[in-house]
Amino acid sequence: MANHPFLMDLLEEVRSGRRTPQEAAEEISGLRVEEVGSLARIDLGRTLRCGIPEVVLAEGKDTPHLVAIMKRYLETTGRCIASRATEEQADAVRSGVPDASCEYFPDARIIILSDGSPVPKTGGTVAIITAGTSDIRVAEEARIIAEEMGCTTLTAYDVGAAGIHRLFPALQKLKDANAYVVCAGREGTLPAVVAGLVGRPVIGVPVSVGYGYMGKGEAALASMLQSCAVLAVVNIDAGFTAGAFAAQIAHGADQ
Amino acid sequence: MANHPFLMDLLEEVRSGRRTPQEAAEEISGLRVEEVGSLARIDLGRTLRCGIPEVVLAEGKDTPHLVAIMKRYLETTGRCIASRATEEQADAVRSGVPDASCEYFPDARIIILSDGSPVPKTGGTVAIITAGTSDIRVAEEARIIAEEMGCTTLTAYDVGAAGIHRLFPALQKLKDANAYVVCAGREGTLPAVVAGLVGRPVIGVPVSVGYGYMGKGEAALASMLQSCAVLAVVNIDAGFTAGAFAAQIAHGADQ
Amino acid sequence: MANHPFLMDLLEEVRSGRRTPQEAAEEISGLRVEEVGSLARIDLGRTLRCGIPEVVLAEGKDTPHLVAIMKRYLETTGRCIASRATEEQADAVRSGVPDASCEYFPDARIIILSDGSPVPKTGGTVAIITAGTSDIRVAEEARIIAEEMGCTTLTAYDVGAAGIHRLFPALQKLKDANAYVVCAGREGTLPAVVAGLVGRPVIGVPVSVGYGYMGKGEAALASMLQSCAVLAVVNIDAGFTAGAFAAQIAHGADQ
Amino acid sequence: MANHPFLMDLLEEVRSGRRTPQEAAEEISGLRVEEVGSLARIDLGRTLRCGIPEVVLAEGKDTPHLVAIMKRYLETTGRCIASRATEEQADAVRSGVPDASCEYFPDARIIILSDGSPVPKTGGTVAIITAGTSDIRVAEEARIIAEEMGCTTLTAYDVGAAGIHRLFPALQKLKDANAYVVCAGREGTLPAVVAGLVGRPVIGVPVSVGYGYMGKGEAALASMLQSCAVLAVVNIDAGFTAGAFAAQIAHGADQ
Amino acid sequence: MANHPFLMDLLEEVRSGRRTPQEAAEEISGLRVEEVGSLARIDLGRTLRCGIPEVVLAEGKDTPHLVAIMKRYLETTGRCIASRATEEQADAVRSGVPDASCEYFPDARIIILSDGSPVPKTGGTVAIITAGTSDIRVAEEARIIAEEMGCTTLTAYDVGAAGIHRLFPALQKLKDANAYVVCAGREGTLPAVVAGLVGRPVIGVPVSVGYGYMGKGEAALASMLQSCAVLAVVNIDAGFTAGAFAAQIAHGADQ
Amino acid sequence: MANHPFLMDLLEEVRSGRRTPQEAAEEISGLRVEEVGSLARIDLGRTLRCGIPEVVLAEGKDTPHLVAIMKRYLETTGRCIASRATEEQADAVRSGVPDASCEYFPDARIIILSDGSPVPKTGGTVAIITAGTSDIRVAEEARIIAEEMGCTTLTAYDVGAAGIHRLFPALQKLKDANAYVVCAGREGTLPAVVAGLVGRPVIGVPVSVGYGYMGKGEAALASMLQSCAVLAVVNIDAGFTAGAFAAQIAHGADQ
Amino acid sequence: MANHPFLMDLLEEVRSGRRTPQEAAEEISGLRVEEVGSLARIDLGRTLRCGIPEVVLAEGKDTPHLVAIMKRYLETTGRCIASRATEEQADAVRSGVPDASCEYFPDARIIILSDGSPVPKTGGTVAIITAGTSDIRVAEEARIIAEEMGCTTLTAYDVGAAGIHRLFPALQKLKDANAYVVCAGREGTLPAVVAGLVGRPVIGVPVSVGYGYMGKGEAALASMLQSCAVLAVVNIDAGFTAGAFAAQIAHGADQ
Amino acid sequence: MANHPFLMDLLEEVRSGRRTPQEAAEEISGLRVEEVGSLARIDLGRTLRCGIPEVVLAEGKDTPHLVAIMKRYLETTGRCIASRATEEQADAVRSGVPDASCEYFPDARIIILSDGSPVPKTGGTVAIITAGTSDIRVAEEARIIAEEMGCTTLTAYDVGAAGIHRLFPALQKLKDANAYVVCAGREGTLPAVVAGLVGRPVIGVPVSVGYGYMGKGEAALASMLQSCAVLAVVNIDAGFTAGAFAAQIAHGADQ
Repeated sequence: MANHPFLMDLLEEVRSGRRTPQEAAEEISGLRVEEVGSLARIDLGRTLRCGIPEVVLAEGKDTPHLVAIMKRYLETTGRCIASRATEEQADAVRSGVPDASCEYFPDARIIILSDGSPVPKTGGTVAIITAGTSDIRVAEEARIIAEEMGCTTLTAYDVGAAGIHRLFPALQKLKDANAYVVCAGREGTLPAVVAGLVGRPVIGVPVSVGYGYMGKGEAALASMLQSCAVLAVVNIDAGFTAGAFAAQIAHGADQ
Repeated sequence: MANHPFLMDLLEEVRSGRRTPQEAAEEISGLRVEEVGSLARIDLGRTLRCGIPEVVLAEGKDTPHLVAIMKRYLETTGRCIASRATEEQADAVRSGVPDASCEYFPDARIIILSDGSPVPKTGGTVAIITAGTSDIRVAEEARIIAEEMGCTTLTAYDVGAAGIHRLFPALQKLKDANAYVVCAGREGTLPAVVAGLVGRPVIGVPVSVGYGYMGKGEAALASMLQSCAVLAVVNIDAGFTAGAFAAQIAHGADQ
Repeated sequence: MANHPFLMDLLEEVRSGRRTPQEAAEEISGLRVEEVGSLARIDLGRTLRCGIPEVVLAEGKDTPHLVAIMKRYLETTGRCIASRATEEQADAVRSGVPDASCEYFPDARIIILSDGSPVPKTGGTVAIITAGTSDIRVAEEARIIAEEMGCTTLTAYDVGAAGIHRLFPALQKLKDANAYVVCAGREGTLPAVVAGLVGRPVIGVPVSVGYGYMGKGEAALASMLQSCAVLAVVNIDAGFTAGAFAAQIAHGADQ
Repeated sequence: MANHPFLMDLLEEVRSGRRTPQEAAEEISGLRVEEVGSLARIDLGRTLRCGIPEVVLAEGKDTPHLVAIMKRYLETTGRCIASRATEEQADAVRSGVPDASCEYFPDARIIILSDGSPVPKTGGTVAIITAGTSDIRVAEEARIIAEEMGCTTLTAYDVGAAGIHRLFPALQKLKDANAYVVCAGREGTLPAVVAGLVGRPVIGVPVSVGYGYMGKGEAALASMLQSCAVLAVVNIDAGFTAGAFAAQIAHGADQ
Repeated sequence: MANHPFLMDLLEEVRSGRRTPQEAAEEISGLRVEEVGSLARIDLGRTLRCGIPEVVLAEGKDTPHLVAIMKRYLETTGRCIASRATEEQADAVRSGVPDASCEYFPDARIIILSDGSPVPKTGGTVAIITAGTSDIRVAEEARIIAEEMGCTTLTAYDVGAAGIHRLFPALQKLKDANAYVVCAGREGTLPAVVAGLVGRPVIGVPVSVGYGYMGKGEAALASMLQSCAVLAVVNIDAGFTAGAFAAQIAHGADQ
Repeated sequence: MANHPFLMDLLEEVRSGRRTPQEAAEEISGLRVEEVGSLARIDLGRTLRCGIPEVVLAEGKDTPHLVAIMKRYLETTGRCIASRATEEQADAVRSGVPDASCEYFPDARIIILSDGSPVPKTGGTVAIITAGTSDIRVAEEARIIAEEMGCTTLTAYDVGAAGIHRLFPALQKLKDANAYVVCAGREGTLPAVVAGLVGRPVIGVPVSVGYGYMGKGEAALASMLQSCAVLAVVNIDAGFTAGAFAAQIAHGADQ
Repeated sequence: MANHPFLMDLLEEVRSGRRTPQEAAEEISGLRVEEVGSLARIDLGRTLRCGIPEVVLAEGKDTPHLVAIMKRYLETTGRCIASRATEEQADAVRSGVPDASCEYFPDARIIILSDGSPVPKTGGTVAIITAGTSDIRVAEEARIIAEEMGCTTLTAYDVGAAGIHRLFPALQKLKDANAYVVCAGREGTLPAVVAGLVGRPVIGVPVSVGYGYMGKGEAALASMLQSCAVLAVVNIDAGFTAGAFAAQIAHGADQ
Repeated sequence: MANHPFLMDLLEEVRSGRRTPQEAAEEISGLRVEEVGSLARIDLGRTLRCGIPEVVLAEGKDTPHLVAIMKRYLETTGRCIASRATEEQADAVRSGVPDASCEYFPDARIIILSDGSPVPKTGGTVAIITAGTSDIRVAEEARIIAEEMGCTTLTAYDVGAAGIHRLFPALQKLKDANAYVVCAGREGTLPAVVAGLVGRPVIGVPVSVGYGYMGKGEAALASMLQSCAVLAVVNIDAGFTAGAFAAQIAHGADQ
């Protein structure tokens, strides 16, 4: 897959004469930014530029506002994702946009609204692994966004960290992945262990489980950042970022 | 490039009959671990397994010990890297292993000892960017390890964060990269800005510059982890990890 | 606008003979301090001294107490503001002081009780900007207090931080401001970006949104304090302080 | 003084026809960015855009590099400031650029290199206050940058925080200031006290003095952010930022 | 008032022959410790030893258990205090021990159960001051315990910190105190201001009000510990400790 | 001993007619503040007001400046204390003020310069206790300031915390103290143990010894603040504050 | 009691010929891992390997899932423990597995499901001590797991820390223990005191009680880690870990 | 080995008539405490009570003082250990006590002074493991103290954490240990891995190596406390405590 278009290209096109400076200035000035209601502005250009779908944060939004925003996205790009959504919000979207397809994922608390056409497979495979069952809600965020970005996903949940021997058969099933997302709370050891066993990029996701000293994912974050293994990290519970990052890697690996 | 060999493969070979269990058990038992002097054990298998060269930490090692370890690596794999090394240590290695090639990089404080044969190009291009001049020592760590892993590297140092318009021509030169390593101290904004402009994976490296509240790279780390942009992060000053991670991505992207 | 009167002036008046020491001592002794009920004392002199209206914190006060305090202010200065107020408290004030004008701002959770006379325009324009929609509740606090201090306000909400190109047209509309209040959560980049583009003072307000590592506005605070841009900062969610500070600047700029 | 020119203006000029898009694109592309040596890029446009002189961080730079950068600035803008500089570095600059005027301020550790022409007075007065004598090094940074930005400065150092009565006569001398910079370490009370007495904007600067719990300016930072008084804050020891911010306010107030 | 009896005295009595070692050993072995129900042990000796009444923590105790413990104390010492108690718990104590006197203080959330005899005045006067109205619940804890220890108390609540001139008339009323307890949240300045004005010991009590950075009393704690004034501090919200400590001082001062 | 004179008294005298308002205003205006050199102002009124000698911080002051300040104090009050002073600074003071008495305390790093007349005994006894030998430097600060304030001091150093039985004979020797200063590092248990055994106020001083997690006195601070015992605390290493506070208590107890 | 079997033994058996490598590889590959439902995998081998029963975290699990997992364990090992369980969950287990024995411990919030056969006594005695009544819920976790591991347990709850003399008779009753678990919140002194008095290993458990600065067990953790006494520590509230660790010690001591 | 004698036993002996109360009181009063010089008191009873040798902290002590203390111990108990000692201090001890045996361990920075008689073997075996070479200085502290307490020690240094397969042959050599001390810096994973493989108590020692976020052993501490494995922890770098604790376990296991 070729490199995504972005602002640099625009300037390059100006330099090479393929586009007039006027057009470029308009692009820069963001004339294609449109407004929904009075408060939120949708950036319809971003999907095109970076290949990452815009995700609407449902949490804290009142329902009619959420429905309006999602509907607007649907009309423009044929697809819209809402994160940290409740089942009630999903129902409201379903009623408010009746002829669209609306899926709700309760573990990940994600709504996907679409015109029913499947996401085109852009190639690449992302593996998602969790240490325990409490990490699954974060892992599912990663899985769904990677699927939305056109990747194939493989999962192995609750493979454990303490009993290292549980991990081997699980990794066997995931051996064709182009990138690994590994979610773990408490001491967060699993990503480093996986990174020591596979030869592909591993992204660690600290999960806010556990109690006591640095118990809400902070020990896991610290341990992943300090790891001797080659490992990159995202914020605590940032399943979405990890999944999108892994999909970017997988896209590059499957051209 | 195919997936690197690793422990799972070994077990798979046992399962398929291509290798006897006895050989596998010996491999697991680490019989190829050898000792240098009385304290340090070298793991010569790791390079083969994950494609990441072992890096010897020169800091705090006494010089004869360092020379002995590096010589031992050289004899086995033809190459050895030492990090956080002083110029004096480099000189001692140069004298102690006179017929090898010994390069010292003062910014990155890295020694590379080799038999003179070039690193085989495994393909892939890694771009390294810094916000300021103080970030260069960390960026150079990333650049050198990526080169050692067979990647082409491109750099744009001191492109600034405050004056966003400085960044565009610099990014133009780096547009063919498969992955970006972006080093920044203080508030650490640059990686998110780059991630908003390019369509390839961006790895943020917080750098321990600045003063005052969270001034030793902690504000940069926090800001990168909290970023709305799709971004993965490594530890403060962890140029080595970032470079190796980017090289893993680039390898995958250039098969 | 001239410098506000304050204690130094009082002493100067004593020195110059324009006021007797006796009068000054009485002023210092706070004889104009009066009591409402048994617990809270109102400082009616502060508005005169510094030009900043006293704001009553509604949160945690029982309703009759709140109504009594606000009514007392109204009688003395013709105006009273209550912050962090619920709609129920606003209703109680409305019933308890029926012939006054009582406005409630649900986003900002502010009650303004007045005798209906408009705030005299003291001149100066304050611009209020937010990165996202979650920052609006804090921005509205800033906007209302600046209006109460006699400034004109201009707003641009949800202009985004990641997509820098969204920002330019928004800033165009705000170009006549004497000071900018910029509210942002998560990594809190926007104030520095604005400060790099405008030539007037920019006040950053970290907002307690986001999750994970330093997620409740702490990353934003750190990033604003560490910024290379020229920027002053207030406490997390301190919309009131930012608005009053900006109004002080705007007053000075519009004499 | 009119609003400073900035990027928005450029786009506005394109829209109105006063400048061709081609010129604008060149401006955006940063064609006026030049290189000094191999590593540092100087942004000569920033002074024009925001009215804030670029400050070269001398700390950690090797001397010939520093001299070269400062000389280059001098030739282009007639003036250059270096911060956190040693007396040795100042001497080297003095020898390396013999026909320029070179001042060294040992408290503030600042070098000012100029062609001898005075800074044009842009108007406005900035007052700088310190609680103790240890805060003076930070206060001097603020004072010098404000002078460099064309403001008149007034100072009152070591006015104390505990003995509040020491403060009054000092404030009397500063009553014509358009903005106050107040530097204080330990518990950092003084800025709030000043803000309670004057009617103009007060910028608090926490200073890294003191010992024990939160002793390196962190208690002062916390106390300034939590203050009930209307106060804006900069990073610990950030005299430069505070001075430049105060000068921006003073510029606006003296048009 | 003479020094309170304590364990050292016991050993001294052994040395001097006034008490047999056997008696001393029994004292040390705690034979006077008795049990209430199966879990809690009451140390009836402590009141005698240090002059500080034992305070039962009501929070988290189930009601019958609380009633039983308080009743047991009442029978032995004629008096019992319960802290962090709800009105419901107070009612239950009142019904459960009907012929005792039972007072409930809703601000301080304290129950005092007694046989009706007044606390003997041991002499000494403690002044309690708060910065705002939110600090009163903590101040009341201090006041009640000081009263229980036989001191006279004087209070001045909500005297404010920002407007320093409000404080003077309040302090006038408290000038005969032997010790001052000063409660303040947010930046916690008031105790240092009071300590700068009076010549008697001042105990600062940080109060967990406020929001944002170090907002739950931590900024106040830091600021009190860093204060240049002579000041001792107790834990955040520790009204009980502050009151008992002040009473110890007052006892000593009124012999 | 009567209550110390302070600003409130001044206002009271105005009210009662014993002093004209003019005199009071002059007092408030600080006309008795004088300047030494250009930077430091000495508050000669403070000793009179609160009974606490002003202490000059020697650390970071250049020697001639220090000598000048101390000489000026000596001439006015007959006495001057400098803290955190080196032996070299003491020698310079000794030479610079040859006919005065100049004592240097190497453990406490304190210089006392006086006209040779002894400190008048104001009465009261302060006990100073340390857990280990590393705490002595802090304890000596407390002891010297208490002596300077006219108290008798008693010391018991290195009485240990782990072996509780070591403590008893030491406490026996200190039983007549009016207040106890107890210095301890690491886990900082000793102050609570002492407070459980004596009936007089105990001030805990955390000392910055130890290593590892919260090792520089922070664990001691936390443990003293959390203690169930009645205990007041000062900043880490704040021997001066603890000693002055204890002397204030002792003064009150010995009238 | 002999050393527990573990993975090393497996490899040793291969080396000595007592087991074929094929069998070993199967063991390593974890073929005995089985699945319950679709998400959770049970590691039935762990009990055998380390002698520590697997504990199911009930918190956050939906009830049918919890019942299924516990039933599966019961069938395989005859026993299952669930921690942080509600009474409702215990009732559901009781109904769902009607012919098993199901005990619920409300203080410790633990369910034990078994086939009714008693835990075989493996020998060894563990003592559990708490400072206050709030620590009992954590202590009970330790007690139950130690019992489940076949140890005898002895308890002394609420022995207090402040009044050291309360402790002696309690310790007398526990003198035959092989290891001590000591639970304490707030300043967490008790474990160090016990360690100073007994000659056997003491494990400190910080408990999340208390308020204010480091109040949720963090001060206790810090104080235990900094203690001069010989003491090992577990996470805040980690009663389970402490009990299992103590049982391991007791097993070793009772062979 | 029987339980060590301690204070409880003393009281028990009084109860049973085997010792007169007079003798017990003398013991409690610490009459056997003697003084060395003027500042330090030696507790010669502690070795007898808890079986743990007193360790003199050499760091920060002046040399003659150190020699005097060590000599005094030698005369009384035949043995003395000094920690954090320099080679120069060791030489001074060697010269100052010429007829004793004086060993210096440079890695551990420990001096052992003895009358030449060997430590009696009390039984029990302690294994000491390190992840890397930087952890050895801490491990050696543990090893030496365990030897001094009469245990046999076994070591496996630099066994690595990332490459798990390196660990197995090392553990084979240590399989007879009664307790394991495992030292690791950075992410501190190794203790949990070892605890998952052996059936005996494992004590984790975080080591202050590494850099960046929580880099000085704090990440290791957090990760060990959060570990799912059964593990007890000591302070960062607390080799002494870990070794003594392990020896206590080993003593119990080898009776």
